[in-house]
Amino acid sequence: MSVQADPYPLSLNQRAGALADAMIAESRALRLGVARGPAGEVLVDCGHRQPGSFEAGLHLARIALSGLGEVALVPSCDSLLPWSVLVRTSQPWLACLGSQYAGWHLSGPDGVSRMGSGPARALARREPIFEELPHRETADRAVLVLEGDTPPADATDVARACALAPDRVTLLHAPTGSPAGMVQIASRVLECAVQKARGLAFPMEDIQDAMGCGPVGLPHPDTRLAMGRANDAIIYAGRAHLLVTGEAGRARELARALPSCTASDWGRSFAEVFASVDGNFAHIDAGLFSPAEILVTALKTGETFTAGRAEPERLRAGQGLVPL
Amino acid sequence: MSVQADPYPLSLNQRAGALADAMIAESRALRLGVARGPAGEVLVDCGHRQPGSFEAGLHLARIALSGLGEVALVPSCDSLLPWSVLVRTSQPWLACLGSQYAGWHLSGPDGVSRMGSGPARALARREPIFEELPHRETADRAVLVLEGDTPPADATDVARACALAPDRVTLLHAPTGSPAGMVQIASRVLECAVQKARGLAFPMEDIQDAMGCGPVGLPHPDTRLAMGRANDAIIYAGRAHLLVTGEAGRARELARALPSCTASDWGRSFAEVFASVDGNFAHIDAGLFSPAEILVTALKTGETFTAGRAEPERLRAGQGLVPL
Amino acid sequence: MSVQADPYPLSLNQRAGALADAMIAESRALRLGVARGPAGEVLVDCGHRQPGSFEAGLHLARIALSGLGEVALVPSCDSLLPWSVLVRTSQPWLACLGSQYAGWHLSGPDGVSRMGSGPARALARREPIFEELPHRETADRAVLVLEGDTPPADATDVARACALAPDRVTLLHAPTGSPAGMVQIASRVLECAVQKARGLAFPMEDIQDAMGCGPVGLPHPDTRLAMGRANDAIIYAGRAHLLVTGEAGRARELARALPSCTASDWGRSFAEVFASVDGNFAHIDAGLFSPAEILVTALKTGETFTAGRAEPERLRAGQGLVPL
Repeated sequence: MSVQADPYPLSLNQRAGALADAMIAESRALRLGVARGPAGEVLVDCGHRQPGSFEAGLHLARIALSGLGEVALVPSCDSLLPWSVLVRTSQPWLACLGSQYAGWHLSGPDGVSRMGSGPARALARREPIFEELPHRETADRAVLVLEGDTPPADATDVARACALAPDRVTLLHAPTGSPAGMVQIASRVLECAVQKARGLAFPMEDIQDAMGCGPVGLPHPDTRLAMGRANDAIIYAGRAHLLVTGEAGRARELARALPSCTASDWGRSFAEVFASVDGNFAHIDAGLFSPAEILVTALKTGETFTAGRAEPERLRAGQGLVPL
Repeated sequence: MSVQADPYPLSLNQRAGALADAMIAESRALRLGVARGPAGEVLVDCGHRQPGSFEAGLHLARIALSGLGEVALVPSCDSLLPWSVLVRTSQPWLACLGSQYAGWHLSGPDGVSRMGSGPARALARREPIFEELPHRETADRAVLVLEGDTPPADATDVARACALAPDRVTLLHAPTGSPAGMVQIASRVLECAVQKARGLAFPMEDIQDAMGCGPVGLPHPDTRLAMGRANDAIIYAGRAHLLVTGEAGRARELARALPSCTASDWGRSFAEVFASVDGNFAHIDAGLFSPAEILVTALKTGETFTAGRAEPERLRAGQGLVPL
Repeated sequence: MSVQADPYPLSLNQRAGALADAMIAESRALRLGVARGPAGEVLVDCGHRQPGSFEAGLHLARIALSGLGEVALVPSCDSLLPWSVLVRTSQPWLACLGSQYAGWHLSGPDGVSRMGSGPARALARREPIFEELPHRETADRAVLVLEGDTPPADATDVARACALAPDRVTLLHAPTGSPAGMVQIASRVLECAVQKARGLAFPMEDIQDAMGCGPVGLPHPDTRLAMGRANDAIIYAGRAHLLVTGEAGRARELARALPSCTASDWGRSFAEVFASVDGNFAHIDAGLFSPAEILVTALKTGETFTAGRAEPERLRAGQGLVPL
């Protein structure tokens, strides 16, 4: 029957680290590889040399959210893609942008740039987003999630940026199109809505609660095609519901601006859009990275503004479904 | 490989207390306020001065059920309201009526009467229901859930009724229309079915298992309107499934009598009904407080009687949905 | 921040035993009976003399899978049967065939043969399947799940087969048609797909991940009718999704061969089929024991082959639903 004089601080890396340790303890069941990397870092292979699994993707998503969100797999109600993720967090800003957002550029052994997500970002603070976020992270370990075919060459740079010894770093990685990768990307259905809201200059502290769901794209070994599938699943069948404080008029504007259909390229498959800009993300209308269906509840007035709608039929072409 | 000579007694307050402590440990993530009240009681604010969250509502529901039921959030299959709760318990009598039912009248600092739910009721035994229930609660702490804008002035009366020192009392409170409030009310979809069955003199010990689901009404700052939304969600879109022993004929009668549509006011919004009786609950046909869709399985014969049906369209007017 | 030099071995019985102990600790809430049997074994009655519950069935299913799979209850999307189970495992071979499959013939006090499932099978190794499975089980306790009205006369034979003292054996049993029984059978929606794939000589090690769902048949006191309901639920409304390595052509063949509709008796109720062979399982086309709807993803090419489809209307006749 405790009353916390000093409530447990939300140390993102400690929370994520506990979840990572639990995942490692189940590494055989989840088909993961666990090893020390060249600099002493813990490397958790969720789909590169080891197969990984859908279940590993759920673990990855919870770790990327620093344990500040719930992530569950459910059967899809519509029959096009069989499984969906349900994601929710009462810390949308901190969990989605402070932790889950893949905003840290890292280079790999092949010279290819990789995007890091997870709470190590909040220790390294290499991104402008951390100037805005009212959270000062302290932790004696760092946890980073990497989407990509291989891990970075070593964790020395990551450790240095976090002011930790390399053996205090845990790197979890899964290729985009692996089963774990597709689940963890689907679990970004809320994050991309929150990130788009930030781009629209909506005050982040006013988003108090968030729930989202969307189908899991089907795995594909080709990273570009897999990315297309995963993004299409969010763009054409994802749903996000944000509960916001502040004026209802602003909530209404947010709902109107948030769905993916506000982007000029909406209607084409993501793979097609990506090819049309020669694979340069920066040339894609950022507004496309958003769920199909948006609900924004203005807590002040009790109105819930809805915009966009799921069009799961648009997923059919790109997911490689072959009816026999 | 244990065999319990003396199985763990179902101390409702100990079970609920452990869940409350776990919720308090996550108070920052869940956006709760935790403080000692004037008499030394632990006050957990789930939506009054602090915002609370949907997730906090799930915790509240589990605590109100004394941990004797599972409560989960799922995406709704129909698209009108986005989220539903799934509730189940293999102790419908004890969990729903002995604990979750909001049957204890308490007065607040504003002189307004509040209804207390949760296992402290089973210690205080102020309600006739406890004469029937074959459970004798003993616990060294008391846990009470209050739906209302503010907590009671102090916990002295609660503590006295429970024969405990006030600092052994945990009071969790959420306004009706807050996110946590709307989730915890939605989680009463089973409780109201069991309570209506009791009103019909169905033998409580014959309800052996129960599952239910229903949409979560959208939050609203006005308590009356929020209450309308929450009740409409159960009345027009809730489902309860009871597994009962005894004669099949009695199960059939129960199914026929249980759905909300047996009440004369069925078809109108709850807010309208409530206004028509000048806000006096006692003047509403108690039969209205029940799920739309009922299944009763007679375990003796294997028949499952079904009555009523969800009419989610009836929810549209009252939930404040504004399509853009 | 651990790296396991020697990863925790997947001792099936230790995993299942921990889950069984947790279930026993909640025996009163779950309406179970727990006692020592004649030879000192732990007997957990989940629906014979004690009523058991749906929730107990979820526990049973997780125990039968040796904790290598997740089992959840969800509301059904179609409205015919109210609840469905979601089952997933990243160890389909080990969890479904090495543990969950009911492949061990045991005789009961009434001389009736019972099928044992759960990880004790992997200690006893009485079935040819264990010659193929690359898993060598060692454990200081054995856990067996029995579907049947009564437990075996005593556990001496089970213990001897497992090379353990009888008091190291935990037997959990539920009648087919009890609430727990119907849930644990529904949870075999993946196992029967994997078993059918084995019968088709598909390499088991190539099934890397699996998700499935299907409705829970409604309880019935008559074992034959209950079995009919449970099998119909899988045959006409179950879904399994397998992720496989190897050539895509083989994945395509598997998908084509796997759905229940490939069996000659498809279209009739299982109870009717069972009666037509005078209750002799061996005379039923084994291909009928499979989900209605199959997805097989060829991880190598990213194609997902789909075959069969749910026809929930076919469930209506046999489930004892009585609309009022």
